[in-house]
Amino acid sequence: MNIRIVIHVLGILLMLEAVGLAVPFMISLHCGEKAASAFGASILISLITGFCLSRIPVLHKKIKIRESFCIVSFSWIFVSIIGALPFFLSGSIPSFIDAFFETVSGFTTTGATIINDVESLPYGILFWRSFTHWIGGMGILVFTVAILPALGAGTFQIFKAEAPGPIAGKIVPRIRDTAKFLYITYIGLTLLEIILLKLGGMNLFESTLHTFGTVGTGGFSVRNSNIAAYKSPYIHIVISIFMILSGTSFALYYGLLKKKWREILNHEELRLYMLIIIGSVILIALNIHGSIYKSIGTSLQHALFHVSSIITTTAYTTVDLNQWPTFSKIILFLLMLLGGCAGSTAGGFKIIRALILLRLIKREFLKLLHPRAIIHIKIGDRTLSGDVLAAISSFSALYFLMIFLGALFISLEGVDLLSAFSASISALANVGIGFDFVGTSQTYGSFSAQSKLFLSGLMLLGRLELFTVILLFSPAFWKNK
Amino acid sequence: MNIRIVIHVLGILLMLEAVGLAVPFMISLHCGEKAASAFGASILISLITGFCLSRIPVLHKKIKIRESFCIVSFSWIFVSIIGALPFFLSGSIPSFIDAFFETVSGFTTTGATIINDVESLPYGILFWRSFTHWIGGMGILVFTVAILPALGAGTFQIFKAEAPGPIAGKIVPRIRDTAKFLYITYIGLTLLEIILLKLGGMNLFESTLHTFGTVGTGGFSVRNSNIAAYKSPYIHIVISIFMILSGTSFALYYGLLKKKWREILNHEELRLYMLIIIGSVILIALNIHGSIYKSIGTSLQHALFHVSSIITTTAYTTVDLNQWPTFSKIILFLLMLLGGCAGSTAGGFKIIRALILLRLIKREFLKLLHPRAIIHIKIGDRTLSGDVLAAISSFSALYFLMIFLGALFISLEGVDLLSAFSASISALANVGIGFDFVGTSQTYGSFSAQSKLFLSGLMLLGRLELFTVILLFSPAFWKNK
Repeated sequence: MNIRIVIHVLGILLMLEAVGLAVPFMISLHCGEKAASAFGASILISLITGFCLSRIPVLHKKIKIRESFCIVSFSWIFVSIIGALPFFLSGSIPSFIDAFFETVSGFTTTGATIINDVESLPYGILFWRSFTHWIGGMGILVFTVAILPALGAGTFQIFKAEAPGPIAGKIVPRIRDTAKFLYITYIGLTLLEIILLKLGGMNLFESTLHTFGTVGTGGFSVRNSNIAAYKSPYIHIVISIFMILSGTSFALYYGLLKKKWREILNHEELRLYMLIIIGSVILIALNIHGSIYKSIGTSLQHALFHVSSIITTTAYTTVDLNQWPTFSKIILFLLMLLGGCAGSTAGGFKIIRALILLRLIKREFLKLLHPRAIIHIKIGDRTLSGDVLAAISSFSALYFLMIFLGALFISLEGVDLLSAFSASISALANVGIGFDFVGTSQTYGSFSAQSKLFLSGLMLLGRLELFTVILLFSPAFWKNK
Repeated sequence: MNIRIVIHVLGILLMLEAVGLAVPFMISLHCGEKAASAFGASILISLITGFCLSRIPVLHKKIKIRESFCIVSFSWIFVSIIGALPFFLSGSIPSFIDAFFETVSGFTTTGATIINDVESLPYGILFWRSFTHWIGGMGILVFTVAILPALGAGTFQIFKAEAPGPIAGKIVPRIRDTAKFLYITYIGLTLLEIILLKLGGMNLFESTLHTFGTVGTGGFSVRNSNIAAYKSPYIHIVISIFMILSGTSFALYYGLLKKKWREILNHEELRLYMLIIIGSVILIALNIHGSIYKSIGTSLQHALFHVSSIITTTAYTTVDLNQWPTFSKIILFLLMLLGGCAGSTAGGFKIIRALILLRLIKREFLKLLHPRAIIHIKIGDRTLSGDVLAAISSFSALYFLMIFLGALFISLEGVDLLSAFSASISALANVGIGFDFVGTSQTYGSFSAQSKLFLSGLMLLGRLELFTVILLFSPAFWKNK
């Protein structure tokens, strides 16, 4: 294990974070907020720590698979610790563990919050809180689209299988170019949504922050009543559309750029994603129409908003979902587990994996009818290897296992069974809300410190596709060969 | 499709059912119950229908895979329809759909009931009700240990992989010998438990009926308060032990007969099964001790009883599980899903599949560390093929999907989310109880007719390992080649 290179890279990342912190610092200064000094101090700490770490002599520059896992996991943790400083130092969140939870929830684009009254926070703090979603969303795009496929071990071959569709191999040959394309698309989506929300009458500050929450599929709001604070159907629909766009594989935007229409239309993950969204919206709208909302238009609007919000694991809300009938809740529950497309900012299990599992089921039926037939499973033009199929199965099993262990841990808080499962899934799938006790994103504050740390761990685990993080706990990982 | 042979075999089975019905008929006659005439009529209907069906000219005797699936699925349905007649004709269950639900629940060894006051039923009816568990348990043993491995298509190779351990290949070379060995073991277990319960002070009738519920891992009781009606810890412990024994792979009893001690001790499914039972008992006992029960002995006793009862999908109860803390409930919830060993009378996902999924997870971690290594997954001495692994994955995915679809359907009854999931899992895994609304086995009566039929379908689906039944709904299955 080349631990020096890990420390070196972490140092650089912390210095980059200082640059990120400069934005809310200037906002705080501009608004004459006391929080400015907290940002100043955080920037200094970030810069100095980062500088010292990056100065460590690196003996050789080789980054192998072990180093990559270390860098990825530790960087999310360290960046979160530094990112928590402004909340803590400004006194906006008096407990450091709470501040850490909030920051992990931000960077992992989960959106679970321990703050009850967001409207009382200073502008700089609000900005930084939502900005973590935006940064995290970008981080996860680069991680899943550029880094993971390059690592290429078992589990992550799936990301190779996904990235195609429109584009063969990687999006563009080299990781750097891939990352650059992702930045541009992501920034483009961001600017477009800010403008559209602004046109809908939302002020620039709120438009920007809600856009961060949308494109990062995070869900932090600047309003205590979340998106319900805005009555305009236009705003609800704009946010719905941008949530769906952010939950779509970003590789498709490259196809869009290259005008590969047919490839996009035939992209199997996209088709299933759209099919699930449309089907869920119709079923939920029919279910809530009459029983809750009188107009079919309103029913469709709320159904579209929450289907988009939950499947992309954003978890913005315009109504109290706990009031919805069980039928609608079960659909949302499934969407929570499912999540968006691979190579998007959405969390969860990912549509591509569900698609492959459905193909496996279909093949099993065919095999019963034709026991001697050899039937390959294809996504697009590619035949999936046994390794990729085994990787999907083990991911599914591990995902399920972690949800159970998570619920078991959270149950010690004395909440009911549904709340315990909701909290666990909500953290692991990076959703941010669940049902019952965790039915709105504002109730995590009452959990104990150990549960907050545990949930923070689950969020990281889910965000980094499980295996990456868990491997760090294995002694074999640290053994020198 | 050789539909004539299917009808012929169904005819023979119905005539055999008439023999089964003769036992409660004699009990009813002996007790001078009016139900005797209902049994008489049912026997006549069963005999005549069976005789007519068996008389159909069979052109050729070949039973291929399609015919086997038809025979297995249809026989459970037809036998249940005839089996429902005594309940319906005697007026014990006034609605035929209710009677059908009760009979399916009996034959599938689920144990969910629509009868609120069992103690008011005639002896003959009570006997038949519990006897369906015993017959169903036998049926499923023959099905999973003798028939499925002989079919050998994808999904069912798992049963080939399981049956070994102590015994290579099939338990004994030919299906008939396998079945004979199973009968003897099953009858032996039954007699032993009846004697032990009788020694504990339970009368012969109740001992026999509770034994049927135990060895079939069904859960029908003759007492309204279920096993809580008996205060003796001895009785609780005897039933606990026999539930565990009935949830163990029956192939192991052959190893016991042949004194292959080492093979039994090294049987991996058995070890995981025992490990899960012991671990769950300890965790639950610690959780309920203090919070619910003052004595650690009582806590252990109730923990052992319900862990055995739920993991084997029997669902006998001695207390109201809804009162237990969430932590214990989550463990029981996992055990419900998990079920017992393959080749036992227990339902659920089966320990062997969970074991293989755990191995898959472990291999995935190893692959991350050693990307180029080729690591096989073994159970005992056998390396599992990619086909078997894919079969497990598709089974898992289908199991999960059916639970969701089941919960979605049941949610239309207006129950809460946890009840909807509980009812669905409880039916699919052949458990019989769940949490909240379906927290005791007596509350299914209030569901609508379509939900009762739907749940009956889920029970059959779960009992016949999913693929068997669903395949019948596929047009390709019925296509003549």
